[in-house]
Amino acid sequence: MTESIWRRVGGDVTTPEGFFAWAASRPQGSPLAMALIWSDRPAQFAGMFTQNAAQAAPVVLTRGVSQSGISQAAVVNSGNANALTGPGGLADAEAMRDLTAAGLGVDPALVAVASTGVIGVPLPMDAVAEGIAGLTAACRKGEPCDGAGAARAILTTDTRPKTAALEVELSTGTVRVGLMAKGSGMIHPNMATMLVFITTDARVSAERLDALLRRAVERSFHRLSVDGDTSTNDMVLIWANGASGVRVDGDDLERFGAALTALCVEAARMIAADGEGARHLITARVAGAVSEADAALKARAIVSSALVKAAVYGGDPNWGRVLAAVGTVGVPFRPETAALALNGLPLFERGQPLGFDEAEGHRRLLADEVVFNVELGQGEGRAEAWGCDLTEGYVDINAHYRS
Amino acid sequence: MTESIWRRVGGDVTTPEGFFAWAASRPQGSPLAMALIWSDRPAQFAGMFTQNAAQAAPVVLTRGVSQSGISQAAVVNSGNANALTGPGGLADAEAMRDLTAAGLGVDPALVAVASTGVIGVPLPMDAVAEGIAGLTAACRKGEPCDGAGAARAILTTDTRPKTAALEVELSTGTVRVGLMAKGSGMIHPNMATMLVFITTDARVSAERLDALLRRAVERSFHRLSVDGDTSTNDMVLIWANGASGVRVDGDDLERFGAALTALCVEAARMIAADGEGARHLITARVAGAVSEADAALKARAIVSSALVKAAVYGGDPNWGRVLAAVGTVGVPFRPETAALALNGLPLFERGQPLGFDEAEGHRRLLADEVVFNVELGQGEGRAEAWGCDLTEGYVDINAHYRS
Repeated sequence: MTESIWRRVGGDVTTPEGFFAWAASRPQGSPLAMALIWSDRPAQFAGMFTQNAAQAAPVVLTRGVSQSGISQAAVVNSGNANALTGPGGLADAEAMRDLTAAGLGVDPALVAVASTGVIGVPLPMDAVAEGIAGLTAACRKGEPCDGAGAARAILTTDTRPKTAALEVELSTGTVRVGLMAKGSGMIHPNMATMLVFITTDARVSAERLDALLRRAVERSFHRLSVDGDTSTNDMVLIWANGASGVRVDGDDLERFGAALTALCVEAARMIAADGEGARHLITARVAGAVSEADAALKARAIVSSALVKAAVYGGDPNWGRVLAAVGTVGVPFRPETAALALNGLPLFERGQPLGFDEAEGHRRLLADEVVFNVELGQGEGRAEAWGCDLTEGYVDINAHYRS
Repeated sequence: MTESIWRRVGGDVTTPEGFFAWAASRPQGSPLAMALIWSDRPAQFAGMFTQNAAQAAPVVLTRGVSQSGISQAAVVNSGNANALTGPGGLADAEAMRDLTAAGLGVDPALVAVASTGVIGVPLPMDAVAEGIAGLTAACRKGEPCDGAGAARAILTTDTRPKTAALEVELSTGTVRVGLMAKGSGMIHPNMATMLVFITTDARVSAERLDALLRRAVERSFHRLSVDGDTSTNDMVLIWANGASGVRVDGDDLERFGAALTALCVEAARMIAADGEGARHLITARVAGAVSEADAALKARAIVSSALVKAAVYGGDPNWGRVLAAVGTVGVPFRPETAALALNGLPLFERGQPLGFDEAEGHRRLLADEVVFNVELGQGEGRAEAWGCDLTEGYVDINAHYRS
């Protein structure tokens, strides 16, 4: 699978044909911001959701929509997670859905709801209703679509919006896939306070979309950790509205799936690089494992280690912490067959520390992306995972701001 | 089991009869400090070791000693972990053992070795040999025993020595149990850079000692997390030299085991409270779980959550993070039957956030110990776990100092 099958294009969820998005201006003095995603026709729909047992009300509601396999819109708010809010929280999520459906003139069953922000505080429904009224009016009046504004509206402590889009050449034509995401903290394998919205104008059934999404998420968002905390509110949603008229079938399923995975990996890397307080993207590449699953487990252990993360922040090539992290999970590794390199600088081979220039090690850690290459010498499994360094900024954000 | 069976006494590993300890002065300009523990007769011996696959050389060596069930001495160094140091590292650990045995005039098979400090750097064997010469000379000459000095010598980034001792009333007499420990960072369930040395003058077989130790560790050190990293060098060792002449048997096994567990819990709490950069001890008490194991899993998830730890540091009663952590592990919890209190202040009951005074919540977080009481309403299982807050100090220590 070569990259030439798809092409990165500047864009977002509104790049695929027939998709539109708007943002509501943040009410004065309110932490709440809102966005609307709209497809001009009902779309095939699939979703993946947090595995946290404390599932937020919008997760419960939108999981139901995903089971129907069809959706036409999503309403999203940041600033309040509507999680652990009891039966009142579910009623509020339903009200968000119903107000949006009424404003758009569609069946409420077609509307997905997503929330992110502080846990355990009731939604300020007056502000929410006002936001929805503005968003649905913009859609009805055909106001200029604002994908960039929507991508900003869903952020919490993220420092930059996260969007990406691809054009994918299939055997019978070109389709587009677009994405917007928010990440920041409470990010860990099995989803996090991570909201990801993906649109495509390909024609593909909800069932196949679901399978393709699961594979893409397994190799992207499930290999991402900011702080080891798994959120109550995660979701990754994908709509395929078929507006391109190009059906995804046969060999094209593989091509489309690879492009979708690449897009999700790009988003996972953006989320890791913009983790709370982060100064560096950390990439762990583990090869020579007994299986891909074991390689993934070990790669995630590296990017999840508080000590590795702090050492990267400090520019300290304290590589022992990397192999100590590898040693904590999965099939026991054998130091005597293992090797480790840091941004191309060999540090450890076949059970032996290599002499290396400390200053050079420090210099390699100044790069924006720090890559640990681990070769285990136990098999053919390989995987990557992404995380970020642990800084005083992370502590400051999470100690002193309510998020 | 009431506490009246045992009595806390000021003391350390030298409190039980027949046990002695000395510290070697730190050589000029060296990070290395050393300690020796000595029993005046061979003792029954058991140990538990890190589950990290990257086991340090002293772990490999001392595990072998524990399999024999008998030991008379331990030599310990801080400042260097002798981990991931290849075959040379194992030879160095053996040299530590052999030099100690020769200096003490005992069989090398009776000598345990423990190390803690930086990973992947060869031990400075000249300094080690000098330290061992001083320690064994002190023992031979009967120099004044220095349990407090030994407890200081084994520290790395710990800010205070950790010692404790109990007198235990058994049916046929009194026995003593003493302990010294080091903790600090790389501390997580399943052991950590945690060295714990326990001595007792009780008469008890190595086999029973091993079973009692496993039960005590399960309820103490396995419920402790500082930063989620599992060290290459952990060990908890226990010697029983029988010097009291009091045999532990029958009902006394239960009594002695309860006292040993209490001592280990005290040490676990000391280690948590002195975690790197810590300002607060965090205690999670989970009750109403389907089992003790599930309660322990959930309690550990709370004290391991970076977001909970940062909120405690910031004095932010952001309780949603506590229940979000509970939701990530084990048997899915049901918010609708759950309750949460923070140092006695109710925050959540039966699926509903309770109104509470934010200022009062903040005030409760100023206490040295922050206790989260979680009631799940699912069964009878209960467990406690201990951790500490996440501070800029933790990041600073681990970013800028090689440990």
